[in-house]
Amino acid sequence: MDIATIIGILFGFIVIISAIVAGGGWQMFIHIPSMAITIGGMLCATLIHFSLPQFLGIFSIVKKTIIAKVPSQSELIQKMINFAAINRRDGALALEQEIPSLDNSFFIKGLQMLVDGRDSEQIRDFMSIEIQYLQDRHLTGKKILEFMGSAAPAFGMIGTLIGLVLMLKNLDSPDAIGAGMAVALLTTFYGALAANLIFIPLAGKLGLYSKAEVTAMEMIVEGICSIARGENPTAVREKMQAFISPARREEVKASV
Amino acid sequence: MDIATIIGILFGFIVIISAIVAGGGWQMFIHIPSMAITIGGMLCATLIHFSLPQFLGIFSIVKKTIIAKVPSQSELIQKMINFAAINRRDGALALEQEIPSLDNSFFIKGLQMLVDGRDSEQIRDFMSIEIQYLQDRHLTGKKILEFMGSAAPAFGMIGTLIGLVLMLKNLDSPDAIGAGMAVALLTTFYGALAANLIFIPLAGKLGLYSKAEVTAMEMIVEGICSIARGENPTAVREKMQAFISPARREEVKASV
Amino acid sequence: MDIATIIGILFGFIVIISAIVAGGGWQMFIHIPSMAITIGGMLCATLIHFSLPQFLGIFSIVKKTIIAKVPSQSELIQKMINFAAINRRDGALALEQEIPSLDNSFFIKGLQMLVDGRDSEQIRDFMSIEIQYLQDRHLTGKKILEFMGSAAPAFGMIGTLIGLVLMLKNLDSPDAIGAGMAVALLTTFYGALAANLIFIPLAGKLGLYSKAEVTAMEMIVEGICSIARGENPTAVREKMQAFISPARREEVKASV
Amino acid sequence: MDIATIIGILFGFIVIISAIVAGGGWQMFIHIPSMAITIGGMLCATLIHFSLPQFLGIFSIVKKTIIAKVPSQSELIQKMINFAAINRRDGALALEQEIPSLDNSFFIKGLQMLVDGRDSEQIRDFMSIEIQYLQDRHLTGKKILEFMGSAAPAFGMIGTLIGLVLMLKNLDSPDAIGAGMAVALLTTFYGALAANLIFIPLAGKLGLYSKAEVTAMEMIVEGICSIARGENPTAVREKMQAFISPARREEVKASV
Amino acid sequence: MDIATIIGILFGFIVIISAIVAGGGWQMFIHIPSMAITIGGMLCATLIHFSLPQFLGIFSIVKKTIIAKVPSQSELIQKMINFAAINRRDGALALEQEIPSLDNSFFIKGLQMLVDGRDSEQIRDFMSIEIQYLQDRHLTGKKILEFMGSAAPAFGMIGTLIGLVLMLKNLDSPDAIGAGMAVALLTTFYGALAANLIFIPLAGKLGLYSKAEVTAMEMIVEGICSIARGENPTAVREKMQAFISPARREEVKASV
Repeated sequence: MDIATIIGILFGFIVIISAIVAGGGWQMFIHIPSMAITIGGMLCATLIHFSLPQFLGIFSIVKKTIIAKVPSQSELIQKMINFAAINRRDGALALEQEIPSLDNSFFIKGLQMLVDGRDSEQIRDFMSIEIQYLQDRHLTGKKILEFMGSAAPAFGMIGTLIGLVLMLKNLDSPDAIGAGMAVALLTTFYGALAANLIFIPLAGKLGLYSKAEVTAMEMIVEGICSIARGENPTAVREKMQAFISPARREEVKASV
Repeated sequence: MDIATIIGILFGFIVIISAIVAGGGWQMFIHIPSMAITIGGMLCATLIHFSLPQFLGIFSIVKKTIIAKVPSQSELIQKMINFAAINRRDGALALEQEIPSLDNSFFIKGLQMLVDGRDSEQIRDFMSIEIQYLQDRHLTGKKILEFMGSAAPAFGMIGTLIGLVLMLKNLDSPDAIGAGMAVALLTTFYGALAANLIFIPLAGKLGLYSKAEVTAMEMIVEGICSIARGENPTAVREKMQAFISPARREEVKASV
Repeated sequence: MDIATIIGILFGFIVIISAIVAGGGWQMFIHIPSMAITIGGMLCATLIHFSLPQFLGIFSIVKKTIIAKVPSQSELIQKMINFAAINRRDGALALEQEIPSLDNSFFIKGLQMLVDGRDSEQIRDFMSIEIQYLQDRHLTGKKILEFMGSAAPAFGMIGTLIGLVLMLKNLDSPDAIGAGMAVALLTTFYGALAANLIFIPLAGKLGLYSKAEVTAMEMIVEGICSIARGENPTAVREKMQAFISPARREEVKASV
Repeated sequence: MDIATIIGILFGFIVIISAIVAGGGWQMFIHIPSMAITIGGMLCATLIHFSLPQFLGIFSIVKKTIIAKVPSQSELIQKMINFAAINRRDGALALEQEIPSLDNSFFIKGLQMLVDGRDSEQIRDFMSIEIQYLQDRHLTGKKILEFMGSAAPAFGMIGTLIGLVLMLKNLDSPDAIGAGMAVALLTTFYGALAANLIFIPLAGKLGLYSKAEVTAMEMIVEGICSIARGENPTAVREKMQAFISPARREEVKASV
Repeated sequence: MDIATIIGILFGFIVIISAIVAGGGWQMFIHIPSMAITIGGMLCATLIHFSLPQFLGIFSIVKKTIIAKVPSQSELIQKMINFAAINRRDGALALEQEIPSLDNSFFIKGLQMLVDGRDSEQIRDFMSIEIQYLQDRHLTGKKILEFMGSAAPAFGMIGTLIGLVLMLKNLDSPDAIGAGMAVALLTTFYGALAANLIFIPLAGKLGLYSKAEVTAMEMIVEGICSIARGENPTAVREKMQAFISPARREEVKASV
């Protein structure tokens, strides 16, 4: 999830900036008031649409989408099989010392419930609600990014209209026309760039990331509930393999 | 719900007006006939689309969206637990003196039914219909705002077409061209600004507000029905906590 | 349903015409060939899309939407309660002399079936099919208006393209450019005005009107079937009140 | 279905051509290379999107939509009642001599199955699959026409871009600018006209035609299955009347 | 599936290039920096939206869509009937020597499971999951192509805005205006061409190809499960014929 986003944003800006520099006029493309209209207008519209906590939460969701790693499915399966074996051999309490080895807070919470002796239904109920709320939070994040992706070009156009009206005031000096028109178009440029290189693709990535994380969480729930029912490692592996494609199952078997 | 909307509208206009003033021509942006076409045309189209009562109702709904406070979920839970305790200790009639302490008319109506000795099924039936009608009213409000958000730019464009045709009458004086063109573009500017800074984001906010208010009302129904069935405070808290995210439950427990 | 549509169309045209007259060039806005392209093209496309009877039916549906009055819900309830009382006191045959007092042909047909001694199942079956066909007819009307609302701007643009190509023939005379351009823009203006002030809002109103009329018809069916089962006036009132909002029920009770 | 389509296309072209001729420049509107880009590009995109048999099948479907007559519903009912009477009087074999009087191959196939002594379930199964495949074929046809309706303006715009770039090569001669611009706009004109006067409305008509033909086929299946179960003519009429609106039933009764 | 795609792309480019060459300025249409903005920007946005493996997988899916042949339905039915006969005559093990005659890996896997003595439920479960994952993979491919089809024109417009701003820098030399404008329009041209001639139609074709391949796979599953249950060749043929249109069944019977 990680690398593609960073490469895409980085190379996208390199491509755009190269074209501008090659055209020989990069100074013309930096115009603070135009940025203020486009970005400021978009942020204000987003604030009106959403609530303050939702608005502030979007930055941490986006950061997490770029930085966080979805746990590897084969690693998850391998760990769960080990835990199933420990559970059958030494009992659930022996799993407590495995908790420090995990870096996924959802996995830790599940394992803790297992160690605490909760039955599989209680674990599933509690953890399903957690998954539901995570999905809601991600969906809200996706909606905010999509709204930003539609508001940015709209405020770009509003900025261009302001620029055009101001420019039409002094039509007599041809020089001013060119410069005024260029500045007027900048807001549309900023809006289109922000929407198409940042907000719209990030909304798509957030959707994919959310799906991948939810699948991982469902695998964890399935595995821990199997262990809670005292199933053997082979049964646990079969349950968890239903989440991955047949082609990749061989690979998992090999690695396990 | 409140502050973000006001901040967004306020700062949005500050951003736009600053840009205009910085451009040095704010007088050009105030043109009453252009406003009349854009806003008047949009209001007329809205009147044709909707009925007179729906049209008049939208203002109160928007005002309520901005001013009204969705009741805090943890407060609701705390109150309901207190009421459950009172009900178990002193009977439903003792709840009557709690009514003046409430500021939510829906909560009051529910508590009154409880005091009147209605059973939980009657309370749920009556209050569910109220929720249904509130949702319908909010949905109609959302549709009106969305229609305004699409009609405003349309009448902005119609105004611009009128301005362009009028301007093309006297193409010989270059000065008139600039001024005429500037005026023609104003209607598009007004329409785009009204749609993107007011109507479209407000429609979104109304949707979120409606969802939050409906959740609060469903919590009240759930709580009052639990009390009507004589359940103890702990059971009431567990029923109501199903509506809030696991992360916030701890916080509620602490505050309760 | 009635007044808002008429006010909206009337004031909409007043707003647009005022702006044109104030701009000092109303003669320029009347151009029969441009109207012929926009309106003619739109009508032809509508004829290709729909069948001749559907196309001809749209005018009567629109007229009915504007003129016809949806029966008042409280009047309906009051009448039905009276009829229930007459039925219990004097038998179904006594209802025959009430038929001339009704002006709703659907209500008359239902009452006639009651007088003829049909049982409640037969009445519901027959009348539900009538409601279904009315909904289908209204839905087709809505689709035709929506199609007209998208075809009018499209043929407006086609007209503008024709005008531009013709204008570009003689670019040498600047006067001709202005006039030609103005005429070319007129078709876009006509198309945008017809779509946004007439077709799109009327399609919306037809949808609301259809919903209100269907609700009234469902209330009639519910009431007549109750009477046919010999229920008492109070039971009839309760059945019919389920269709109206709790807030308005008090009002009905008072008026009944 | 028939006449409206032909009238619409005919008058549509008359309206457009009249406007062009009245503008005094019909020669300018015939430009073979521009037609080649718009129509050729659209056909190539359609070929890429769909398979060769689907692409070739669209022409016969459109032709059939314009020429073919949906069988009259009252005629269908009348014939079916006659066949039911013959079946009851002389047995299914006597229906064989009625087959030559039919011109609907679907009806013939059904009657043949009846004569061959298949039971009502076998007939329904076989004929339902035929209806399903007809619907699929019509739906594919509708999708192709809709795709053409979106591809034609797109290639019109591509043609205009090519024309503009070529025109901008020699900006020094004002005459060439006008002519080049006019030619450039022609592809957009062709694309918009083809989409809005031909493809989009025809796609709509195909949808309506498909619905009408499927209703007729379902009426045939219902009628033949009734006869196969040996039902009497009155029962057959009642089954088939469920497909037509109550208003038209009287008319059918009269004609039958 | 194959030929139409290749013909469409080939002729599409021939049509466009012919128009450009006929206009006498093909050199103007090749501008590497403009291509870099449009294609580079689009690829970067796609990378941000999707994950690296999904992005890289799209090329092999498209290649397969163009090259791969969907197995002929009548051949499939014929082979399956032969295998059913062999199975009834010589037992499932005798089918092993038929495996080398197949070129479809999904068919081979199914036959292998049959030879290995798996029962029909196990085969269906395993193969249904394979179909599900193929559908997911194709759907992702379709989404990527559709996203490219919307990103290409967007980055085309961004490139045009950059070009316009650069051009407006030196409005004094009319020559530079024409050339600058022409170059600015090129990115929009590239974006529109890539979207409308490549990405959008290919996304449609991928959808059709996916549907055809899934139908073939479902036929294989149905046939192998029938054989696994020891059904006779006639029963196998009837099961598989349910997948093809009645018109084509006769043809299959003839060929079988």
